[in-house]
Amino acid sequence: VNDDYSTEMLSWLIALLPVNRSLTGDGNRITLNFLKKQIPELLITEIPSGTTAFDWTVPDEWNVKAAYIEDSKGNRIVDFAKSNLHVVGYSLPVDKTVSRAELNQHLHSLPDQPTAIPYVTSYYSKYWGFCISEEERALLKDEQYRVFIDSTLQPGNMTIGEILIPGDTTDEILLSTYICHPSMANNELSGPVLAVALAKWLKTFENRKYTYRIVFLPETIGSIYYISQHFEELRNIKAGWVLTCMGDERSYSYLPSRDGNTLADRVSLQVLKDLELNFKNYSWFDRGSDERQYCAPGIDLPVCSVMRTKYGEYPEYHTSLDNLDVVTSKGLGESFKIMAEIISTLEYNDIYRINVLGEPQLGKRGLYPNLGTKNSGLDIRDQMNVISYLDGYNDLLEIAVKCNLKFSRVRSIVETLSKFSLLDSTIQI
Amino acid sequence: VNDDYSTEMLSWLIALLPVNRSLTGDGNRITLNFLKKQIPELLITEIPSGTTAFDWTVPDEWNVKAAYIEDSKGNRIVDFAKSNLHVVGYSLPVDKTVSRAELNQHLHSLPDQPTAIPYVTSYYSKYWGFCISEEERALLKDEQYRVFIDSTLQPGNMTIGEILIPGDTTDEILLSTYICHPSMANNELSGPVLAVALAKWLKTFENRKYTYRIVFLPETIGSIYYISQHFEELRNIKAGWVLTCMGDERSYSYLPSRDGNTLADRVSLQVLKDLELNFKNYSWFDRGSDERQYCAPGIDLPVCSVMRTKYGEYPEYHTSLDNLDVVTSKGLGESFKIMAEIISTLEYNDIYRINVLGEPQLGKRGLYPNLGTKNSGLDIRDQMNVISYLDGYNDLLEIAVKCNLKFSRVRSIVETLSKFSLLDSTIQI
Amino acid sequence: VNDDYSTEMLSWLIALLPVNRSLTGDGNRITLNFLKKQIPELLITEIPSGTTAFDWTVPDEWNVKAAYIEDSKGNRIVDFAKSNLHVVGYSLPVDKTVSRAELNQHLHSLPDQPTAIPYVTSYYSKYWGFCISEEERALLKDEQYRVFIDSTLQPGNMTIGEILIPGDTTDEILLSTYICHPSMANNELSGPVLAVALAKWLKTFENRKYTYRIVFLPETIGSIYYISQHFEELRNIKAGWVLTCMGDERSYSYLPSRDGNTLADRVSLQVLKDLELNFKNYSWFDRGSDERQYCAPGIDLPVCSVMRTKYGEYPEYHTSLDNLDVVTSKGLGESFKIMAEIISTLEYNDIYRINVLGEPQLGKRGLYPNLGTKNSGLDIRDQMNVISYLDGYNDLLEIAVKCNLKFSRVRSIVETLSKFSLLDSTIQI
Repeated sequence: VNDDYSTEMLSWLIALLPVNRSLTGDGNRITLNFLKKQIPELLITEIPSGTTAFDWTVPDEWNVKAAYIEDSKGNRIVDFAKSNLHVVGYSLPVDKTVSRAELNQHLHSLPDQPTAIPYVTSYYSKYWGFCISEEERALLKDEQYRVFIDSTLQPGNMTIGEILIPGDTTDEILLSTYICHPSMANNELSGPVLAVALAKWLKTFENRKYTYRIVFLPETIGSIYYISQHFEELRNIKAGWVLTCMGDERSYSYLPSRDGNTLADRVSLQVLKDLELNFKNYSWFDRGSDERQYCAPGIDLPVCSVMRTKYGEYPEYHTSLDNLDVVTSKGLGESFKIMAEIISTLEYNDIYRINVLGEPQLGKRGLYPNLGTKNSGLDIRDQMNVISYLDGYNDLLEIAVKCNLKFSRVRSIVETLSKFSLLDSTIQI
Repeated sequence: VNDDYSTEMLSWLIALLPVNRSLTGDGNRITLNFLKKQIPELLITEIPSGTTAFDWTVPDEWNVKAAYIEDSKGNRIVDFAKSNLHVVGYSLPVDKTVSRAELNQHLHSLPDQPTAIPYVTSYYSKYWGFCISEEERALLKDEQYRVFIDSTLQPGNMTIGEILIPGDTTDEILLSTYICHPSMANNELSGPVLAVALAKWLKTFENRKYTYRIVFLPETIGSIYYISQHFEELRNIKAGWVLTCMGDERSYSYLPSRDGNTLADRVSLQVLKDLELNFKNYSWFDRGSDERQYCAPGIDLPVCSVMRTKYGEYPEYHTSLDNLDVVTSKGLGESFKIMAEIISTLEYNDIYRINVLGEPQLGKRGLYPNLGTKNSGLDIRDQMNVISYLDGYNDLLEIAVKCNLKFSRVRSIVETLSKFSLLDSTIQI
Repeated sequence: VNDDYSTEMLSWLIALLPVNRSLTGDGNRITLNFLKKQIPELLITEIPSGTTAFDWTVPDEWNVKAAYIEDSKGNRIVDFAKSNLHVVGYSLPVDKTVSRAELNQHLHSLPDQPTAIPYVTSYYSKYWGFCISEEERALLKDEQYRVFIDSTLQPGNMTIGEILIPGDTTDEILLSTYICHPSMANNELSGPVLAVALAKWLKTFENRKYTYRIVFLPETIGSIYYISQHFEELRNIKAGWVLTCMGDERSYSYLPSRDGNTLADRVSLQVLKDLELNFKNYSWFDRGSDERQYCAPGIDLPVCSVMRTKYGEYPEYHTSLDNLDVVTSKGLGESFKIMAEIISTLEYNDIYRINVLGEPQLGKRGLYPNLGTKNSGLDIRDQMNVISYLDGYNDLLEIAVKCNLKFSRVRSIVETLSKFSLLDSTIQI
């Protein structure tokens, strides 16, 4: 992969950063329509409020035209127009003058991070509120303030997006990302822009073994709805990833599926190891995104996460500080390369069987030293080890583990053997 | 469990301590009839001498009326009336004057424990003998002594006891204890008195999932006979314990079944860990009681032991010093609480399945924070982890292990979910 | 085993050391006919050149009458008559005068081992060449040399040998050794002479559970041919060893089968441990002999190696220094004892089941102490542990591992139980 799409991804992220995304609303439509310009195959669907999915119901649609707090002199001291994080997600409309004491009951700030506006939501409990930095809050001295939120919360739609890039088989790879957070860069916009870059790259393939399903969903309710509507089709998924927190340069993270040893887990670990990345190995108990739904009992999809710095593990998480100081084009580009390597590995990973019994006679094909000496055999040791496991049972990922080789080394040996028609292959199941 | 039966258990133990128990004989009848007063459901059965069971035969019945050694002046220097340990178990009758040399061949003492009368038996080889403290033995200076044992060893019966406390299912829990040791407190009377206390407590339950089978048997021959007669019924046993050495305060011990990973082993380890007891983890190779029979090849019952200080591992073991200095009401009460906790855990342990796909919407039931903030989710992490394994495959014990939680924590989460009708349950098999 | 055949093995080895063995040729016939004098059951077979076997073809037969290099004064400075290692294996005939520069392109020496003549072959690529010590090579100053090799490489036969020693069952043990190396002692002649000694010893048995198949093959092409011709019969092999590098006294080595846990692996490890030998534990990735074929995918035979110092791991390997300084009668004799112990263990290893339920009553058979005391039971602990695993599932090797006992201890307990008719046995499958 030469082009890592890093410049494009950052430009899309910058364009989408000011948009007010939530579980529902025009911000989500704006976001998906912007991404559709990059990838016309993106199918955008509207799901009516009140639609039920498993134990859940799609909520009313929420939109905000304007929102602010005015002091007694009419100064707008907190303004949605400046940062959509100022308004608690799913706030009801309000327009009244309140005492400072009452206002304080509707204000959210972070004493430990005095410059940060926190990100707060109240999706399923009726409420209005503002988020403000601790520093600004300390300046509030007036006795009374006007609070104004011109929002609507009423029947409408939840908007979701999906891309299906067909392959040679019905076996599928899932990439899932979310579109429900307002102006924050690493969590969440790094995910959607990486998903689009991967889709563009996948389209350049001459052929693909797997069919790729790339979905853009509001977290939790979106994935629950999507699983409920595509339950049977999703049985074709052989491996999947939740794309989130992929834009910083600070660290690498792996969070397993509930099972912990699915194809998705195995290829993630092999690629992180092959790339010699020093990654943090999280457990299922550290989860926090849509793998909660994909891996739930009875759904049991092979979905894990490879991330840069994990949600909840960096100080800017879920605040206005999760911005372009956190996410960089370099960070995004490196993440692209990891996911591209994972996909390339999956595309090549198969179960093969040597089609002769005993070792093949490699000398007559130029693959074995002609002269038998004291040390002949050392150079072709990897080759002979790989051959000894090409038994129709181990896939190439398992052989890389058994032989303690990089996948690329296993692959190049298999390609050579294949060139000499020494292999039967069985598609990975 | 508020009442730990500690006072009652000690009083029963004190009453039973002087009784001369053996494989057979009136002492066993006295013991079982005394216990039957506490628990009228106790069924006492007499098994005729000569009855065969697997590779064994019920021996003749042994009783002792009196036994002593007299010195040349007619002083009774060793007297069965003072301690029944003075007579080797299953001694034949004898009444003769012997030289000190001959006497010495029939005397048993412990040079390392000069004040202790050892406990010695000769069940299956015809013999007579006396046990004496090393200190008393040192005083024997006469040339001749009269040895007198007024015993009978003749066809009769072996006496056994059993209690069946029915439950909602035919699945059974086995508690097995033994009644063949004379005046010793920890090994053995702590076992029978604990068994009776547990039976009394089990009767107080409004309902029981399991049927409880509590047996009082002479060790080895008793359990072999009992298994041979109840072979098919015992297939219903899901977990069992040999109750022995349960009265001291010194330590806690666990001895596994032969399999090592049965339900009995799993619940024992979970409870010992939950109670934060620092226990000694023995191996199958340290066994020494009726688990030898219950776990034998072809019998293969899930039977292990939870003990205080294990037989053979405390100096007073199998001597007259295993008395009320070793066993206390506190020790017995603590043991009761452990076994009661094991039983309570078993009664609640089931396999459950969340009856919705995906995570349930806990917010609408007040089980999830309404406000989504940076740290929301931390408080309900245990709950979400447990839910993620309520998959119809793992029982609650396995979930406690997987989530590294106390069983009581898992139970309280399951009870909450159950209250909201979010669970299907499958009885533990 | 009192007679360890050490003297005979060394004498055979000395007699065979000068013979020019290769993949084919009269040297192999001489070797096998010599061994047939020791073991008349040895069946010698000729396989025509051009015969195909799996991916391979039996090469033309190679023989050498004479070969030398003459300097400009007519001195034979390198002479096949002095050491057959001087001629590269499978060298084509040549008779010409060449410049020193051209000669150097056909000379092989070892700068790091200046006194050693290396062993070099060119089986499948047409070539001629000489091997020479670095010291002798340094003396070559003439401008021109005559190179003379009077060899033939033409259609003929590959010669192989096999011995079948029938047993009570069709289950087989395989001993495979190779006969394709010229004058080298540890690798290879220690293997064939040990194989013959084991065959002679096996013939002394009154009865044998297993049938023994002992094969003498040129490495690789020989085993591939043999497997291809006996594929179905070889399904009867329960355990096998490649016998190689068995003559030095320096160390002990174990190289597993591809599976790593076959009967061959288990018995090898048990015997090496029981004999308290400090052995080096190699991995499948260190392999280098005919286990490459026996364990290949689809062939999957349970074949491993127990060796002294492994091929490739001692400095004299594949040079003229692998001679009688490396191999000793003591070294050969110790190896015989190990293999004899492995075979004895296999012959006794079975799956048994105690034919009574519960513990057998050992006291009535004199196998349990009559007097029950504080410590009775300690002496018979091993016996009771072994009995507890005689369940019809574990073979005796597995029981030795589980009980952490020497196989001989397990065996003596089983023999005692067997004497008392307490065992059902099932032949090891």
